[in-house]
Amino acid sequence: MAVQSKSDPASRIVPVPFTAVVIDDGFWAPRQRVNRERTIPFEYRQCKETGRIDAFRLDWRPGQEPVPHIFWDSDVAKWIEAASYSLATHDDPALDALLDEVIALIAAAQQPDGYLNVHFTVVEPGKRWTNLRDAHELYCAGHLIEAAVAHFQATGKRTLLDVLCRYADHIAETFGRGPGQKRGYPGHPEIELALVKLYRCTGERRYLALAQYFVDERGQSPHYFDQERLARGETISIFGPAFSRMYTHEYNQSHKPVREQDRPVGHAVRAMYLYSAMADLAGELGDAGLRAAGERLWQHLVERLMYVTGGIGTSRQNEGFTADYDLPNATAYCETCAAIGLVFWAHRLLQLDCDRRYADVMERALYNGVISGVSLEGERFFYVNPLASNGSHRRQAWFDCACCPPNLARLLASLGQYVYSQGDDEAVVHLYVQGEARLRLAGQSVTLRQETRYPWDGQVRLTVRLEEPARFTLKLRVPGWCREATLAIGGKAVPMELERGYARISREWRDGDAVTLDLAMPIERVYAHPRVSADAGRVALQRGPIVYCLEQVDNGPDLEAIALPRDARLEATFEPELLGGVVTISGFGLRRVVEDFAGQLYRSAPARVMPVPIKAIPYCVWENRAPGEMAVWLTEG
Amino acid sequence: MAVQSKSDPASRIVPVPFTAVVIDDGFWAPRQRVNRERTIPFEYRQCKETGRIDAFRLDWRPGQEPVPHIFWDSDVAKWIEAASYSLATHDDPALDALLDEVIALIAAAQQPDGYLNVHFTVVEPGKRWTNLRDAHELYCAGHLIEAAVAHFQATGKRTLLDVLCRYADHIAETFGRGPGQKRGYPGHPEIELALVKLYRCTGERRYLALAQYFVDERGQSPHYFDQERLARGETISIFGPAFSRMYTHEYNQSHKPVREQDRPVGHAVRAMYLYSAMADLAGELGDAGLRAAGERLWQHLVERLMYVTGGIGTSRQNEGFTADYDLPNATAYCETCAAIGLVFWAHRLLQLDCDRRYADVMERALYNGVISGVSLEGERFFYVNPLASNGSHRRQAWFDCACCPPNLARLLASLGQYVYSQGDDEAVVHLYVQGEARLRLAGQSVTLRQETRYPWDGQVRLTVRLEEPARFTLKLRVPGWCREATLAIGGKAVPMELERGYARISREWRDGDAVTLDLAMPIERVYAHPRVSADAGRVALQRGPIVYCLEQVDNGPDLEAIALPRDARLEATFEPELLGGVVTISGFGLRRVVEDFAGQLYRSAPARVMPVPIKAIPYCVWENRAPGEMAVWLTEG
Repeated sequence: MAVQSKSDPASRIVPVPFTAVVIDDGFWAPRQRVNRERTIPFEYRQCKETGRIDAFRLDWRPGQEPVPHIFWDSDVAKWIEAASYSLATHDDPALDALLDEVIALIAAAQQPDGYLNVHFTVVEPGKRWTNLRDAHELYCAGHLIEAAVAHFQATGKRTLLDVLCRYADHIAETFGRGPGQKRGYPGHPEIELALVKLYRCTGERRYLALAQYFVDERGQSPHYFDQERLARGETISIFGPAFSRMYTHEYNQSHKPVREQDRPVGHAVRAMYLYSAMADLAGELGDAGLRAAGERLWQHLVERLMYVTGGIGTSRQNEGFTADYDLPNATAYCETCAAIGLVFWAHRLLQLDCDRRYADVMERALYNGVISGVSLEGERFFYVNPLASNGSHRRQAWFDCACCPPNLARLLASLGQYVYSQGDDEAVVHLYVQGEARLRLAGQSVTLRQETRYPWDGQVRLTVRLEEPARFTLKLRVPGWCREATLAIGGKAVPMELERGYARISREWRDGDAVTLDLAMPIERVYAHPRVSADAGRVALQRGPIVYCLEQVDNGPDLEAIALPRDARLEATFEPELLGGVVTISGFGLRRVVEDFAGQLYRSAPARVMPVPIKAIPYCVWENRAPGEMAVWLTEG
Repeated sequence: MAVQSKSDPASRIVPVPFTAVVIDDGFWAPRQRVNRERTIPFEYRQCKETGRIDAFRLDWRPGQEPVPHIFWDSDVAKWIEAASYSLATHDDPALDALLDEVIALIAAAQQPDGYLNVHFTVVEPGKRWTNLRDAHELYCAGHLIEAAVAHFQATGKRTLLDVLCRYADHIAETFGRGPGQKRGYPGHPEIELALVKLYRCTGERRYLALAQYFVDERGQSPHYFDQERLARGETISIFGPAFSRMYTHEYNQSHKPVREQDRPVGHAVRAMYLYSAMADLAGELGDAGLRAAGERLWQHLVERLMYVTGGIGTSRQNEGFTADYDLPNATAYCETCAAIGLVFWAHRLLQLDCDRRYADVMERALYNGVISGVSLEGERFFYVNPLASNGSHRRQAWFDCACCPPNLARLLASLGQYVYSQGDDEAVVHLYVQGEARLRLAGQSVTLRQETRYPWDGQVRLTVRLEEPARFTLKLRVPGWCREATLAIGGKAVPMELERGYARISREWRDGDAVTLDLAMPIERVYAHPRVSADAGRVALQRGPIVYCLEQVDNGPDLEAIALPRDARLEATFEPELLGGVVTISGFGLRRVVEDFAGQLYRSAPARVMPVPIKAIPYCVWENRAPGEMAVWLTEG
C-alpha cells in the first residue's frame, strides 16, 4: 500500500494509511465488522439484483426495463472501492474472486477509444459528452478511477487500473484548452479528486494536470453549461421555479471561477468533492490561491451552514445549501454523502494545516451525521439525516439513486486513515479510537497503541513501542469540545504545550513509554447562534463528540412538546445492553399538555406544563428500535 | 346584477352581492380605491406588455419569443373579471371600451368547434386535451367562464358569455362518461366552480351537471392521469425525487375520489378551488356526502395545516400541504392565491351553515395572509407570504406565472360580497366594515349602515333604514378572537342570544333603529399547538383580527435574536401617519447578544440578553418601507 505523496512543501503531514491502522474499540470496530460481513455483501446483492452490475454486459436493448441509469456505474465503482479496502485489511478469497469477475465485466465494456460508460454506450449512444451538467459521465469516471486505484493498492492487480488509465487518457484528449478539445468540466465534481489519486498511484503528472484543468476551468466565461445547453437546443422549462432552481450555476458551483468563490452554494455533495479536490491541488501544487479560496469556503461553512451533527445541506430542493443560518431541523437534508464529503474535505485540510479546527469538524461529522446513515445491523440506510422527525423518516434498504450506501461502506472500510497522520519526525493523533498504528519514524518502525473507551469516556492511554529509543514529536489533539484536559507521561502530570489545539510532546521515546490524556467529558448544553431561527430558544445535548437526541420509544410521542428547563439536572449512564452499548443522558423535562389544545391550532394561553422524565440517546443510533419521533433540539425553559 | 341562486334547501342564506354593498371604511376602502385606480390599469399594462393579450390574435409563429404560455389565458381572464367587477360599481367608459376590445380579440380566437385556448391553438396545435394533468386547458377555460359571467353581470353584454357557453358546450361534449367521451378532469381544479357560476347565471342545468361530473370523476380508477401519461409515452423522469414529487396524484387531489378525501393534500390553490366547487355542489344539489367530505377537509385544515395569518401551503416544492402541524415560518409558501382560495371556500361553507367558525377563518385570511399579497400603492405583489424573512423576500411587479396579482384584483373589486348574507327574513353581518348594504327583507328595501373603526377598534354601530316597520332577524357575528362582547339596542344593553357564534336579534325594526356591538380588543398573545415545532416556545401577537409582526426598520437587524418575556407590558397605539394609518404594538423585549457568538455557530453557553424596545406592525402591511427582516413568531422568555 503506497503512502500518499507529499510533494507540497505546505503539506507537512500525511495520513497514516488505513492498512497500517488497526481499530479494536467498542464503537467503530463493531461498525467495521458489520460493514465487512453484512453491508458490503448486501450492497453487492443490491447492485446485482437491480441490474447495475450486469448492465456492464452492454446487452440492454430499447424497451427493456430497467433502463441503465446515468448514475449506475458509480454505484458499482463505490462498491468495488469498498470491497477492495476490505480486502486490503481482511483476506477473503471469495471476495477477491468476485471483484475479479466484476472488474472483467467492466473491462470488457470499455470501448475501443477508451470510453467507458454504460448509459451512454447502450441507452443514448449518440449523446456522449453532450450534457456534462446533468449526465454524470465524468462523475462516474471519477468513481471508477477511485475504484481502480483502491483495487490496485489492495491487490496489486492492474486490470482495472489499466482500464481506467486508458479512460482517463481518453478524457484528457477530449477535454482541455487545446484545439478541438471541449472546454467542459463535470456538473458533479468527483473526477478531480479521483485524478489526484490516480496521479499519486501512477506518478503520471498528466492526471494531476487534468484535475487542475477541470478545477480551474469551472465557472469561466463564456459559461460552458450555457453553451452546451444551447447546443442541445434545450428551451426553458415550463415546469416552473421548483424545477428550474436545480439548474442554476450555483447548483453545481460553476457560478464563478473557484478561486473567487467565498461561500458554499448549491448541491452539498458536489461542493464537498470539489473543495476536496481544491485542497488536494493546493497541497500538490503549493497553490496558495486555491488554499485561500478553500479556507474562505471552510470558514463560511462551519460558521453559518453546518448542523450540529456535522450534517450539511439544508434543502431537499437543491440537495444543498440555502441562506446563512438557515438550518431547519425536521426538513434538514443532510445527505449522508454530504457529511462523508465533509470528512473528506476536513481530512485533506488537516494534512495541509494541522489545526484542530478541521479535526473537530471531521470528528463531529463522523460520530454523528455520517454514521447515522447506516443502521446498526448494516443493511438499512438514511439518504437524508434530519435533526427532527415526526416518525415518518425511516432507513431504507436501497435507493433508486443509491450513492449513500456504498459511500458509507468505503468510508468505514478505510476509516483507519482518519485517525493518525505522520510527518518528518512527528506522529499526530487526530481521533481517539482504541487500536494500533504502525508508522515509520526516525528510521524505524514505531507502533502506537491507543487504549480508551472513547467516545464514552475521555481517558486515553497511548503506549509507544519501538526497537530503539528515538527522538520525535507526538501530537495529541485536544478536542474543541473539551474544556479541561490534563496530560501525564509515565503517570506524571506534565504541563500541556498546545499547538493549534494539539498537545505537543517532543522528547526521546523509549519502548513502553505511556502518555495519558484525560479529557473531561461532562454533559454539555449546546446553543446555536442567535441567527439560527430554527434553534432560537432551543438547546441540544452533547457529551464528548456525541450529539444526543430524544426518541419517541423512550419519551413518548409529541417530543416537540417537551421543554428542558435551564436548571434541569442531567445524568450520563453507560448502558451496555442498549444499542450496542451507549451512554444515555437522563433527567426531567417539562411537557406541554397537548390535550389543552384539543381542536385548536392557536389559542391565547400557553399550554400547561408537567414534569416528565426524559432520556436522550446518541443521535447516530436513532431509528434502530421502534419507529417514532426524534428531536435533537429541545425548547429550553 | 343577479343574486346568486338558492336552490338548495340546506343553504339558508346567500351573500348580499357586492353591487349592493358600499365600503367606506379606513381599512378596505383605500385598498379598493388603489385597486381600481392603480392595480387594475397596471395589470392590464402588464398583460399587454408581456404579450398575454395580443397572444389571442393567434399570430405566434414557431421560433418567436415569448412563447404563449399555458397559463396566459387565465391571467387575462382574471383581469377581465376584476375590471368587470370594478365597472359594476364604478362607471368608467374607457375601461368599458377596453374590455370590449379585449373581449373581441378573445371571441375571434375561438375555433370553429368552440375550442378556445391560445397555447394549444398556436404552439402545440396537435396536443389538445392530451395532458389534462399539467397543461391547464380546463383551468384556463374556468377562468374565462368566470370572466364571462362577471362581464355579463356588470354590463349586460353577452359577447364573452356566448363565447364561453359555446366553449363550455364543447367541453361538455368532449368530457363525460358517454361513448367516445374522455373520462378526464382538470389537473388544476377551477372550471368546476366556474361552471356553477355559469349555471347560476344562465340557468342551464347542463353546466351544473358538468361541474358535478368533473368533481366526482376525480380520483376514480383506473386513474385518468396514469392512462393519459402512458398515452403520451411519457417515461419516468430522470430528474429525481425533487421533480417527480410534484406529480403524485396527491399533488392535484386525484389520489382518491373526493368523497373519500379527509385531509387536504397537494397544491393548495388546486385544493381550495376544488373544495369550493364541492361546497357549491353540496349546496346546489343538497348533497350530504359532498358536504360531509368538505367538513372533514375543513376541520383538518384549520386544526392542523393553517398558518396564523390564514396562509396555507407549507412547501414551495408542491406549492402546498405537507405533514400535519408542519408550519415553518421563513419557508412558509402561503401563496396569495391559496389564501384567496381559502376565502372562497370559507365563504361558500358559511352560506351552507352560518357558523362563525367559517367566518373567523375567512376574516383571518382576508386581514392578514390575503391582503399582504399587494403593496399599499398597489403595483407590487407577493406570490409567497412567509411568516419570517431574512430581508430577501420582496414584492415584485409581476411574475412569469402571474396568477396572484389579478386574483387579488378580482377579490378586492368584489370584496363587498363577503360582508353580509341574507336569508328569508334575516340579515347576517359576517364582517365589520364601515359602509352600507341594501337588502330586500320582509318585502321591502332595507339599508344597513355600519359605523366602525374596525379592525382598529371593536365598537360597531349598525343603523337600520327602512320604509315601514318590519319584523326580521339581524345576526351579528361575535368573532372567535373576542373574549368579551356586549350588545346594546337603542343605547340599552341587552343580553346576547348566541347562535353558532352570531348574536341573534329578532324583533320589529323601525327606521333609524341602532344596534351597538362592542367587541373588546386587547392585545392577545397567541400560542400554537405544541405539535407545531416551528412555533414551540414562541408567541405571536394579535389584536382583533390583525396578526402582528416585527420589521427590521423598526427593530434593527437579527429579529430572531429578540425574545418577548412572558410578562412584558405591551401597548397599542393608533398611528395615523404610519402605513396608511395602523395600530402598532410596542413594549420591551430581550435581545440575545449576537456578538457573543463571533465566529461560532454553536457554543455551550446561551447568549447574554439585553432589554430593547420593540414595535410590531400589522403583518398585512409589512415590506412597504425599507426592506429588511420580518418575524411573526418571537421566542418567549
